[in-house]
Amino acid sequence: MQVLVLNSGSSSLKFQLFSMPDTRILCSGIIERIGFEDAIFKFKTNKDTIEVVESIPNHKVGLQMVSKQLLDKDTGIIKSADAIDIVGHRVVHGGKHFSNTTEITANVKAKIKALSSLAPLHNPANLEGIEVAEAIFPKAKQVAVFDTAFHQSIPEHAYKYAIPNEYSDMHNIRLYGFHGTSHKYVSEKAIEYLDKAHSKIITIHLGNGCSMTAIKDGKSIDHSLGFSPVNGLIMGTRSGDVDPSIIFHMAERFNLSLSEINTIIQKKSGMLGLTGHSDMREIQAKADNGDKNAQLALDMNAYRIKKYIGSYAAILNGLDAIVFTAGIGENSVDMRRRVCSELNYLGIVLDEDKNKVRPDKLTDVSAETSIVKVLIIPTNEELEIAKQSVELFKN
Amino acid sequence: MQVLVLNSGSSSLKFQLFSMPDTRILCSGIIERIGFEDAIFKFKTNKDTIEVVESIPNHKVGLQMVSKQLLDKDTGIIKSADAIDIVGHRVVHGGKHFSNTTEITANVKAKIKALSSLAPLHNPANLEGIEVAEAIFPKAKQVAVFDTAFHQSIPEHAYKYAIPNEYSDMHNIRLYGFHGTSHKYVSEKAIEYLDKAHSKIITIHLGNGCSMTAIKDGKSIDHSLGFSPVNGLIMGTRSGDVDPSIIFHMAERFNLSLSEINTIIQKKSGMLGLTGHSDMREIQAKADNGDKNAQLALDMNAYRIKKYIGSYAAILNGLDAIVFTAGIGENSVDMRRRVCSELNYLGIVLDEDKNKVRPDKLTDVSAETSIVKVLIIPTNEELEIAKQSVELFKN
Ligand SMILES: Nc1ncnc2c1ncn2[C@@H]1O[C@H](COP(=O)(O)OP(=O)(O)O)[C@@H](O)[C@H]1O
Ligand SMILES: Nc1ncnc2c1ncn2[C@@H]1O[C@H](COP(=O)(O)OP(=O)(O)O)[C@@H](O)[C@H]1O
Repeated sequence: MQVLVLNSGSSSLKFQLFSMPDTRILCSGIIERIGFEDAIFKFKTNKDTIEVVESIPNHKVGLQMVSKQLLDKDTGIIKSADAIDIVGHRVVHGGKHFSNTTEITANVKAKIKALSSLAPLHNPANLEGIEVAEAIFPKAKQVAVFDTAFHQSIPEHAYKYAIPNEYSDMHNIRLYGFHGTSHKYVSEKAIEYLDKAHSKIITIHLGNGCSMTAIKDGKSIDHSLGFSPVNGLIMGTRSGDVDPSIIFHMAERFNLSLSEINTIIQKKSGMLGLTGHSDMREIQAKADNGDKNAQLALDMNAYRIKKYIGSYAAILNGLDAIVFTAGIGENSVDMRRRVCSELNYLGIVLDEDKNKVRPDKLTDVSAETSIVKVLIIPTNEELEIAKQSVELFKN
Repeated sequence: MQVLVLNSGSSSLKFQLFSMPDTRILCSGIIERIGFEDAIFKFKTNKDTIEVVESIPNHKVGLQMVSKQLLDKDTGIIKSADAIDIVGHRVVHGGKHFSNTTEITANVKAKIKALSSLAPLHNPANLEGIEVAEAIFPKAKQVAVFDTAFHQSIPEHAYKYAIPNEYSDMHNIRLYGFHGTSHKYVSEKAIEYLDKAHSKIITIHLGNGCSMTAIKDGKSIDHSLGFSPVNGLIMGTRSGDVDPSIIFHMAERFNLSLSEINTIIQKKSGMLGLTGHSDMREIQAKADNGDKNAQLALDMNAYRIKKYIGSYAAILNGLDAIVFTAGIGENSVDMRRRVCSELNYLGIVLDEDKNKVRPDKLTDVSAETSIVKVLIIPTNEELEIAKQSVELFKN
């Protein structure tokens, strides 16, 4: 069975073709700068790597290029578009409607569209990807896997904000949570490794976006991203937690419009606002060269993660494992060391030598004395989407 | 020595006269609804209680009434205005200038005034109180005790927000912290009780405003109120932590102005927004009668406090005591029970029987098995202001 996984952003389209159930990757790639003259099309199989720069006006043209490439007589992978059995779509916002992976119907599309007010940058792009895929792969089953779905198990006392009920209950202003596919994927691997009937886990996803989840017996019970993906940890360009009064103060004091402040909080804050760089590798290099700003930014970043670890250890009232994942979590020896330092009161002790890895599979880097397992687990959201898509049609 | 402590709000003036160093209260009182025809003047000595309703147009007239009453031949306390040695003023915002109690000079007043942009409701009222007191008690020394001062020991990685440096460093947008006088007062009592050279304490001030402080060796190292007194815990009418994106969403979706949203977040949220009541006694009564909203609000409130306890236990990497104080902290048996339930992983176990108190002095309510002391310590901000004011002139 062949499953195409699509992750459609506002100006990009990532894709990966899996042979299932053996989870072999047949090809993968990305289209960037959709809508521009110099869009970039990258396509990779086990044999070839193709890169083309040309005008790609919209997602439809982009996905047609993917399809054409898949079908190419020389470098292609499949014989006909009908060879694709399932297209699994990453959809960012499922609101409170979707707590599971769902086959896409007209009704599901209408709901994804209606949720655009909660995810104005993401849901319309996801929907675009769905409609283009329906046209190009008409025989395939279309499936939506929601970033928010895993967090639908969060209880009301945790997802509700202390604002007037008319806004929260009647207008759906609440914590939704994101990165659910990643947190679910790595937590399941961790639970398998722990091999316990009951488990208390904190998953720490540190990529360009960063988030943490408190997971009890496999279910998300709290999460650091909230109503939007700006809350919580310090990210590449997003502020994470800030006192909300700052927004009122900035508007008044600097005469900024709300949309200007929103842009500052979402695109010019976080590590970028603190250091001038959003890429962790550059920040780490500067810090190593003695740059004080970069060092402070790393301190702040790790400090915030520590606070969330403590907070989730409290509500879980116990802890079996913490899991580092995504670009920074999997690769930054330094960030893991910072986060785990002086947390022995919570039972967390890192083995500094074992930690010196960038593993491609689950790796236990806890010290012998650690009560809590410290794990690195490479995430794979595309594979998780493929798996869930196949799972849906099992019965 | 006689020390008059003044706490001057936008439409109120609280006062307390101490005999020092014996800390005897000679009289106390409050003026409410300043600026209205039906302002209320309350004055209490050991012998008399006086209550008058009349027009009090401004703070000056109010403080003159206090002075007249103090000097009254029959019900008064002092012979001449010069009998007051020190007037200690509560000042809300000391910015980054003041990390200690300070004698008030023209320069200090200018700084308090300049800080009004950070505390528009409080600092102008505090300054008004200072200037009126200078006129009425010209022989007395005038002292400012800042709500923010105790938190000036918070390190940069904790007080800085992950917004662009131009706003944080150049325009002083950072965590300041509040309720410092209360946190300092109760933490000193706790440290005395613990009798340890090094101590790790979390103080939990639950009044109309609510806040928590992580205190290491007597110094504040982190705090839940931030740039403004709206962050952190769920309060009587303030939201505490919310995803900042909610503000942008509310403005766009409901066509609300920023000042309307600010009012919602500050005055219509918190327990009021969740239950229709801001007074904890009414909410607790409703919850006891089975009201689901009230029960949820109490759950949310306690849950948020638990999360901060965990977060501070993490950054302290240890915990000797948690301290409950202020109206709710001292009196609500139920809230303390909720907060401490299922926190044994952090070493916190409450003795449910001992907890059934509303003590007027430090009371240890930890279970025998508790590694962490659970303490109730009545706060006394006025006494702390009087003490610090006297201390200032010791040498
Ligand atoms: N060796 C490394 N050391 C530190 N950070 C790394 C390393 N490799 C990648 N990263 C960081 O990972 C982040 C991107 O993570 P990723 O999970 O790919 O992001 P996304 O959220 O876009 O999926 C970047 O900040 C990058 O600098
Ligand atoms: N017996 C009680 N049980 C529960 N809450 C109480 C009790 N007594 C007072 N409170 C609460 O304490 C809060 C006021 O605390 P206080 O410290 O006086 O406030 P402020 O911040 O104005 O100084 C109110 O919410 C009130 O309901």
